[in-house]
Amino acid sequence: MSQENSDVTQTTAETSKGTPAPETLSNTPDPDLAKEVARDFQFVLDGEFPETRDKIREMLNVEEMLPSFGLSLEESRANITGKLQQVMESGLPRGVFKEEQGGTGETGPSLTSIEMLGHVDLSLMVKAGVQWGLFGGAVGNLGTERHQQMVTDLMNLDALGCFAMTERGHGSDVQSLETTAHYDPETKEFILNSPTASSEKFYIGNAARDGRWAAVFCQLYTNDSEESKGVHCILARIREDDGSPVEGVRIGDHGFKGGLAGVDNGTMMFDNYRVPHEALLNRFADVDEEGNYSSPIENPNRRFFTMLGALVRGRVTVGAAAGSAARTALDIATTYANLRRQFASDDSLPENKLIEHRKHRLRLIPAIAKSYGLQLATNKLISRVHELDQLGIDPTNMSDKEQADQRELEAHAAALKAANTRHATDTIQDMREACGGAGYMAENYLTTLKGDSDVFTTFEGDNIVMMQLAAKELMTGFARELGGLKPMEMVMFGLDSFSSLLRRRTAADKLIQNLQDTFTNSEETSLFDPAYQVKLLSEREDNLMMSLARRLRQARDLSVEEAAKVVDQAQDHLLAVAEAHVDRIVFEAILDGESHLRTKQGAKVFEQIRDVYFLSTLLDNASWYLEQNMLTGTRTKAARAALNDLVDSLGPWSQTLVDAFGVPSLMRDTMLLEDYDEMVPLCERRPAGSA
Amino acid sequence: MSQENSDVTQTTAETSKGTPAPETLSNTPDPDLAKEVARDFQFVLDGEFPETRDKIREMLNVEEMLPSFGLSLEESRANITGKLQQVMESGLPRGVFKEEQGGTGETGPSLTSIEMLGHVDLSLMVKAGVQWGLFGGAVGNLGTERHQQMVTDLMNLDALGCFAMTERGHGSDVQSLETTAHYDPETKEFILNSPTASSEKFYIGNAARDGRWAAVFCQLYTNDSEESKGVHCILARIREDDGSPVEGVRIGDHGFKGGLAGVDNGTMMFDNYRVPHEALLNRFADVDEEGNYSSPIENPNRRFFTMLGALVRGRVTVGAAAGSAARTALDIATTYANLRRQFASDDSLPENKLIEHRKHRLRLIPAIAKSYGLQLATNKLISRVHELDQLGIDPTNMSDKEQADQRELEAHAAALKAANTRHATDTIQDMREACGGAGYMAENYLTTLKGDSDVFTTFEGDNIVMMQLAAKELMTGFARELGGLKPMEMVMFGLDSFSSLLRRRTAADKLIQNLQDTFTNSEETSLFDPAYQVKLLSEREDNLMMSLARRLRQARDLSVEEAAKVVDQAQDHLLAVAEAHVDRIVFEAILDGESHLRTKQGAKVFEQIRDVYFLSTLLDNASWYLEQNMLTGTRTKAARAALNDLVDSLGPWSQTLVDAFGVPSLMRDTMLLEDYDEMVPLCERRPAGSA
Repeated sequence: MSQENSDVTQTTAETSKGTPAPETLSNTPDPDLAKEVARDFQFVLDGEFPETRDKIREMLNVEEMLPSFGLSLEESRANITGKLQQVMESGLPRGVFKEEQGGTGETGPSLTSIEMLGHVDLSLMVKAGVQWGLFGGAVGNLGTERHQQMVTDLMNLDALGCFAMTERGHGSDVQSLETTAHYDPETKEFILNSPTASSEKFYIGNAARDGRWAAVFCQLYTNDSEESKGVHCILARIREDDGSPVEGVRIGDHGFKGGLAGVDNGTMMFDNYRVPHEALLNRFADVDEEGNYSSPIENPNRRFFTMLGALVRGRVTVGAAAGSAARTALDIATTYANLRRQFASDDSLPENKLIEHRKHRLRLIPAIAKSYGLQLATNKLISRVHELDQLGIDPTNMSDKEQADQRELEAHAAALKAANTRHATDTIQDMREACGGAGYMAENYLTTLKGDSDVFTTFEGDNIVMMQLAAKELMTGFARELGGLKPMEMVMFGLDSFSSLLRRRTAADKLIQNLQDTFTNSEETSLFDPAYQVKLLSEREDNLMMSLARRLRQARDLSVEEAAKVVDQAQDHLLAVAEAHVDRIVFEAILDGESHLRTKQGAKVFEQIRDVYFLSTLLDNASWYLEQNMLTGTRTKAARAALNDLVDSLGPWSQTLVDAFGVPSLMRDTMLLEDYDEMVPLCERRPAGSA
Repeated sequence: MSQENSDVTQTTAETSKGTPAPETLSNTPDPDLAKEVARDFQFVLDGEFPETRDKIREMLNVEEMLPSFGLSLEESRANITGKLQQVMESGLPRGVFKEEQGGTGETGPSLTSIEMLGHVDLSLMVKAGVQWGLFGGAVGNLGTERHQQMVTDLMNLDALGCFAMTERGHGSDVQSLETTAHYDPETKEFILNSPTASSEKFYIGNAARDGRWAAVFCQLYTNDSEESKGVHCILARIREDDGSPVEGVRIGDHGFKGGLAGVDNGTMMFDNYRVPHEALLNRFADVDEEGNYSSPIENPNRRFFTMLGALVRGRVTVGAAAGSAARTALDIATTYANLRRQFASDDSLPENKLIEHRKHRLRLIPAIAKSYGLQLATNKLISRVHELDQLGIDPTNMSDKEQADQRELEAHAAALKAANTRHATDTIQDMREACGGAGYMAENYLTTLKGDSDVFTTFEGDNIVMMQLAAKELMTGFARELGGLKPMEMVMFGLDSFSSLLRRRTAADKLIQNLQDTFTNSEETSLFDPAYQVKLLSEREDNLMMSLARRLRQARDLSVEEAAKVVDQAQDHLLAVAEAHVDRIVFEAILDGESHLRTKQGAKVFEQIRDVYFLSTLLDNASWYLEQNMLTGTRTKAARAALNDLVDSLGPWSQTLVDAFGVPSLMRDTMLLEDYDEMVPLCERRPAGSA
């Protein structure tokens, strides 16, 4: 890396064989060139559904759609419920449903639309996600023709509904739900009950104020057995038209939360509440009028996971929208860093802009690079969900390969849900801090983004549970028909399936395969060589998987209690596998994105984004590479120096990098008031007492 | 470490020479023994002023003093302003002032009181801190006899006031403030002006609603020169008794923030606003009626830093109160983790409590250990501030040693402010997540703690600025009379002063010195040997300082612009020095605390807390130790295994560990509702619409 002061940096940047370090970029980017680069990057980041993105951008970039704050609970809720109308008019909900249901079947655009809401207002995103994605998804995917009227009504906002899955006692562990539904053949009704305090439906969106209906997940009982048929879903009216609860349903209000003020989360309990026979969403299992149970899917475990398949979309959108919120925060803070001046290096020098401080660049640039990677990986995920939906596969009759694909997709959705929401929580926090006092003022939106996004690491599956799910899927090699292994099954699963898994995985992508094929390793291979970069990330994932398998294998002969202890003690190892996996697939998505650029200058800048992502990931795990003797201390020091050089090089381009996110511009406009030339005293804009 | 399954852990725990690994604690602690341990720990953690702590605990542990949420801005503000009365009655404010001012001069108890407010309500803590600590501190420390009436009034809440330092353009960089005060000898008045939009006083607590007065920091001008005499402080009336702004002062309202709803932050601008000659707080500099400027402190730089000395207490309390908030969050989440069950290892086994999951223990226990360390280090800091105040040193006439002590104290306050607030932000966030959905409900307080504490990393000096300040002080070896080095001065400062600095520093504490003296190093020394632990932490600090000095020295012959670049490129290195310093002093505080325990069982448990703190600090910096060849990969792997063993050992004791914090118990009581035996359905407690 050409650099005037390389003699004074503690370690010199990478000088080893092969791919050279990228050149330092101009520190005064030509404005036209910068615009061209931003356009090129936005083209790549917008992915398969750019028109959808533009449509939602336009809808959101008006004063009335900006996030509100400081309203009462009722005002916040009314405000968001009102805005659902605009979202409906954008056509978003129709994509959720098949053509024969009155929709368009355009899954990709509908998921992308929900993702885009996350740029501006996560309350609106969640409210839309609950109504159409979760409630709508349950009725649309688990119901049959007899539920068509409800599909039409919910799509048009004529029926607002809840996705009543989570209970107080059980959230992420859905199989342990306690709500019951007993079929009564005499009256041809299901009787819903909440037998324990811990069976209370909890945190349910749309429950406290708006919902008239609920898709209730419950243990299903018929007369032939005392045993539950497993978790099924029943459509139940919960409120009268006037908003009062129906008899037999008690509803509670969670009131204030850490954010998402516009979402009316509430609770629900059922007391011998009877719903008609037709209320069962009966696509994957039915009870006839006499009370005979039947299902086209014989294996109860597979049936359960098929019904839960609808959750995948929820996880995809929660991760994707969190990613949007993170990009908005980066946009705001980078804009601020390019305007705000603080501290001069010397009295003889002008004050520096924040971006001109090294530490500030180290806060912004690696986070921006990670956002690029996560968005590209999420785009691929959404495209795959879209493609699978277009194939119209019958979930009751899937081939082994189709099932494996489905499980892999679910694992990817879980992993990216966790990675995106973790990144959002960390990044929004750091951007709040990077904007100092201005970041804490509600009018600059960062605190609303922070409070609203905070629960994204928890809902739609707690992140730790999601990462375990992803790791377990990896461990089973996507090969077993029924995933969701209990720990004991994990122990039983040995090394044998491993080699085939590794082959399958690394062959997943042509681009990567080509890189791997042409790569010849050497101790001095350049850290900027993309093939070596892939190799270092893949080897971490593979080694961690292999050592975990070895570790668990030792527990095979132990008692259940002892083996459980072994599995618990390997929990951090299991999570490390999932993290290594995410790091790799995100990197591969960046490489893939790089191959789609259309301008030379774009390629020059993007290469450095890739290097920043790679090097910061490497450095986050430097101790692991050192412990494994995969890298020497000299190499990790060189990596650190190279990362520093790269953020110095990209600093002047930082505004361009975030411009490419295409965040609705009103979100950063208040920060522009920090431009010294444009400053309006706040006491003139808003005298005390007028707020 | 004795452990049944050591054969299956990936790496075996420490087995090297010397101090053996601690024994695994009983996993069913005897309740009486646990209570004894908690009492012993609380004795050590409560430090020098336990009666003060108990008084505030009692005051706070009533329903009316719990944090409110969901109120309007005006209601929140009125609520907190009302509660100031109770805080006044606790006697807290009198400790801020000397006996001759009508106070008690008991600095330590007053700082401890403000710290304790942080357990429950940070709005109240900030409001009290602004009124008595900052506004009161400015008038009390910078004023003279002629300001005595104001001291009496503000102590009794008869005069509410603002600390008007920060401006929109300059926060952490106080020397660059732009507000002006020109002395007019004709009328014997100072004329206050806000000459630019960026000179608007910003984020000022008490300004938007309650403040009638302000201590205004401004550039002082007298007729003898066009040049500013530097930043001085003037007491100005800003509102009439009826609450309307006085003529010449414009006041703005920041409205909603990310938290601290009870604190009325606002802005202020001055338009040829005249205040009487006596308004100058004239202890360290005066202007006589004719306009002649004089000061008992000749050096303008030293004068500035003497006037800013009052800020130390603010920084101490901000750090300390953030620490309290973190301990409350740990108490809530640990209580929850010991009640809440989720996921069984196998269908044949009961569901595990959250604390029975390894990853959960790894979230809670190291954070608890760090809270122990930070509290003990903060106690020492408060005790030192208290002692220095008791000495009654005249700041205008300090010996070199006294000045060095003062600068060192300021550096410690800055470092611990940053460390405590960073820990609070990270921990409260993680505890929110560790409580899942329950953590997001406002009624469980974590989200209020989160929003309120968020800005603590920013105010009273941004954390990065604080860490730089601390590192620069270290670098000057506390030896130069005037610290606050500009970067260019840092470059000029070379290696020569270093050896004396290191001697001075390591001799600071007898206990540590004894450990160092008796220690003989060996490649296989046990990682549990406290002397080796000190050594590893000290060497990181020393090495980083030495290499930084070498790096900066190379810039000596460069031009100012080039040298500035070198300094910027070393910014992350400078911050690493400060971090290493904090890690060491916190560890030494733990060792010191350990020496004050009174029970054998307490010592047995506390030793493991020390080991957890040490090992997690070591592992956070494992790549550095590996790169420096100070540890082998085998050793860092052993450290990781040992940390895992320790959190397994301490897991069953986790409730005891947080009980020792002595957090007002009402703060965790709502979490007790998660006890399955005591569960009351929320829909019965609070039907929808009643919130």
